[in-house]
Amino acid sequence: MRAIYPGTFDPVTYGHLDIIKRSSAIFDELIVAVAANEMKRPFFSLEERVELLRKSFLLPMSGVEICSFHELLIDFARKKKAKVVLRGLRAVSDFEFEFQMALMNKKMNPDIETFFMMPDETFSYLSSKGIKEIISLGGNISAFVPAVVEEAFKKKYDAIPPQ
Amino acid sequence: MRAIYPGTFDPVTYGHLDIIKRSSAIFDELIVAVAANEMKRPFFSLEERVELLRKSFLLPMSGVEICSFHELLIDFARKKKAKVVLRGLRAVSDFEFEFQMALMNKKMNPDIETFFMMPDETFSYLSSKGIKEIISLGGNISAFVPAVVEEAFKKKYDAIPPQ
Amino acid sequence: MRAIYPGTFDPVTYGHLDIIKRSSAIFDELIVAVAANEMKRPFFSLEERVELLRKSFLLPMSGVEICSFHELLIDFARKKKAKVVLRGLRAVSDFEFEFQMALMNKKMNPDIETFFMMPDETFSYLSSKGIKEIISLGGNISAFVPAVVEEAFKKKYDAIPPQ
Amino acid sequence: MRAIYPGTFDPVTYGHLDIIKRSSAIFDELIVAVAANEMKRPFFSLEERVELLRKSFLLPMSGVEICSFHELLIDFARKKKAKVVLRGLRAVSDFEFEFQMALMNKKMNPDIETFFMMPDETFSYLSSKGIKEIISLGGNISAFVPAVVEEAFKKKYDAIPPQ
Amino acid sequence: MRAIYPGTFDPVTYGHLDIIKRSSAIFDELIVAVAANEMKRPFFSLEERVELLRKSFLLPMSGVEICSFHELLIDFARKKKAKVVLRGLRAVSDFEFEFQMALMNKKMNPDIETFFMMPDETFSYLSSKGIKEIISLGGNISAFVPAVVEEAFKKKYDAIPPQ
Amino acid sequence: MRAIYPGTFDPVTYGHLDIIKRSSAIFDELIVAVAANEMKRPFFSLEERVELLRKSFLLPMSGVEICSFHELLIDFARKKKAKVVLRGLRAVSDFEFEFQMALMNKKMNPDIETFFMMPDETFSYLSSKGIKEIISLGGNISAFVPAVVEEAFKKKYDAIPPQ
Repeated sequence: MRAIYPGTFDPVTYGHLDIIKRSSAIFDELIVAVAANEMKRPFFSLEERVELLRKSFLLPMSGVEICSFHELLIDFARKKKAKVVLRGLRAVSDFEFEFQMALMNKKMNPDIETFFMMPDETFSYLSSKGIKEIISLGGNISAFVPAVVEEAFKKKYDAIPPQ
Repeated sequence: MRAIYPGTFDPVTYGHLDIIKRSSAIFDELIVAVAANEMKRPFFSLEERVELLRKSFLLPMSGVEICSFHELLIDFARKKKAKVVLRGLRAVSDFEFEFQMALMNKKMNPDIETFFMMPDETFSYLSSKGIKEIISLGGNISAFVPAVVEEAFKKKYDAIPPQ
Repeated sequence: MRAIYPGTFDPVTYGHLDIIKRSSAIFDELIVAVAANEMKRPFFSLEERVELLRKSFLLPMSGVEICSFHELLIDFARKKKAKVVLRGLRAVSDFEFEFQMALMNKKMNPDIETFFMMPDETFSYLSSKGIKEIISLGGNISAFVPAVVEEAFKKKYDAIPPQ
Repeated sequence: MRAIYPGTFDPVTYGHLDIIKRSSAIFDELIVAVAANEMKRPFFSLEERVELLRKSFLLPMSGVEICSFHELLIDFARKKKAKVVLRGLRAVSDFEFEFQMALMNKKMNPDIETFFMMPDETFSYLSSKGIKEIISLGGNISAFVPAVVEEAFKKKYDAIPPQ
Repeated sequence: MRAIYPGTFDPVTYGHLDIIKRSSAIFDELIVAVAANEMKRPFFSLEERVELLRKSFLLPMSGVEICSFHELLIDFARKKKAKVVLRGLRAVSDFEFEFQMALMNKKMNPDIETFFMMPDETFSYLSSKGIKEIISLGGNISAFVPAVVEEAFKKKYDAIPPQ
Repeated sequence: MRAIYPGTFDPVTYGHLDIIKRSSAIFDELIVAVAANEMKRPFFSLEERVELLRKSFLLPMSGVEICSFHELLIDFARKKKAKVVLRGLRAVSDFEFEFQMALMNKKMNPDIETFFMMPDETFSYLSSKGIKEIISLGGNISAFVPAVVEEAFKKKYDAIPPQ
């Protein structure tokens, strides 16, 4: 069975990597799909976000494909012939927004099921937003993201120092 | 009795129309009041939002008035001599924000009561924000909004194509 | 318009009285309806709960009727020709259970609307369960319930002392 | 892939049947596993609950097995060689309890993943507890459960009338 | 400063021990206070619960006193001259009930402050109720409670086997 | 013991002042620390926010220091030799975000504990965001903030009138 794990991944965290590792052990094929999401004005470009995800794995993981998409999630899922969408759920506020989106998706395409996974409790507090806040104040994020992400932040901030 | 149903209505959805239909069967007079809400930078202008609401009804509904307001909700309610404010509640996060606003309103004007209504379960997942996200990605929103709203989006996007 | 405010009222608190006072200013007729609710094994009998509610008002309130019921809420509402059911909402957990019940009621009788009211913030923390816990440990509940309720507890505990 | 959908099913509702139908379209084999759960003092016996589930399907569903279990869920899953546990999530309070159980299960057996599914919005308000409350008050539950469940309630109440 | 950490501790878990360790590093004196709570029908007797707490520490912790109480928490705090009550918060449902109790306590005794602490994320999913459910089904709880608690369960079940 | 009460304070409300008053009665030294938080684009400048806090007290409070900080909270706490961070919790959504931040902080510096306090129920609905919304619509905020804050808003709006 083929599943899609969509997200903005701005940037990828150890929480995302945990979901990828666990779900790729269940599904035959896993498509990690980076949403363009220009409306959210991501910190990293779409190309950078895909690249950081790729470099987060030392060895290519068999059965895992990393790619980006610009259309509606259900349209992308249909194109990729994936019947399952995976989402991580951390907290009540996640839960509500995810439910709204999953129900709207279901109305638009009833053939695709959304499955929710819990993060490992070690990563339950991790959020890309929190990580960006910490690094903007000079904090150390090495416990939260792979080394490549930490370096990518450094390069960005060397080029354009935060105000 | 006269009640006010305030909101941003950016744009009106079938969820709003359900609340209007059900509450107008209870109250003698219902004022559907579109808040200017410039701070939220609405997608549709105040005039457009009022117009879309009006056109969502094929026939004028007796006892229902549609109008806009720029002041504080409680000041508008007092001016309109309405003792009841109606709000729809979909989810826990709605619930908390609505409670804060209702309690602040009550402190400023204890004579006005806020009543909360649940959406029909068929519309429980609908949000104006979700609808704008779907249409910006080329999705079909005809299950969520009246045809006039769909057309209004098309016109906007033909004039100023999304980036 | 006629509204029903149902509950177990085991026992009535200042929070309930606040809802009754505020809603009776809005609706022409208010029926305060004490549910038998034998399955919940109430502390006070149905007759005692009705009696305590009656004695909580120094003067009879015009337009307010206090009674008990044994059937399904929607059947009682139909019999009483009430189109509106009122419920107080204190917290998120209230919110979810109330929504489930309101949606099941709506499925069984679509003509009856449920309106939710917030308690005054002064009473937001009051619960009949908490009050019973406090009094069972010898605490003073005079800030939370009318004097008649306090006396009723004392009588009960004099007759059958708590273990 | 083989998945387990565990529950008390006291009794099965249209909400459960929706999850079974949707998930059996995704997984090769689905084990619907009725927990004995004596501590919860179920209304229907374990045998009755299994039987009601079986009779809820007019035709046997291929790839779906219905059975009961008395041990810890993760022990049963291991015995059945199932790597996935499915749970329905309706509301925030479900969400929290389910998360606690899923994390405790994961600690005891890290090889089993729990996936959460949302009910169709049409069934989002259904709960076995609510249904038992309605029928104990003489209400009509035909919109919520299959006919066999309705009949089973009637038989029980004819034998031992509710107090 | 002197603080009280009250609870039912039925039985003590690694989550409780984490709160005790962390808070005893902050406060000069910490009173771990086991509530009799007969209404909740605890699995272990009050004496057993106090004993299990005591034996959970290999060495006596300086500045930590373990005792039981039968009265209202605020009356016990006053008697013990403690100005601070500590409570652990795991989840939203905890949060609401704790807030109600803290506000009722504050109304009855405004001099006592309640401080809430988060569990370490490693223990965020632990609940005494979940542990009792696991052991009643023959599960291994050694990751969740100290060895003395595990042994206490075994003794109980040897004496009176679970039904 | 020394505690830090950090926040954006944009602007200070009676809710903040209540937390300051109550916690300064518990801790020997309380540092009220205004976060620069440029990313949130505060309405008042950092200097104004500190100044408004200072002027909110008619007399200097002994044991209370008001200052600003630009770094990560845990770095500031370490510099100030404070072992305790205090945060107010109003609602479920507060609760979740605060928990995430507290857990990330704990990971980065395990020696600092975060304690959560509830607002007095009289201030449970107050939010700086709500207050800014009310004043932008010409509402009266004198029940929510000290007089100096009200005047500061007036001066701002006289200089740059709201659109």
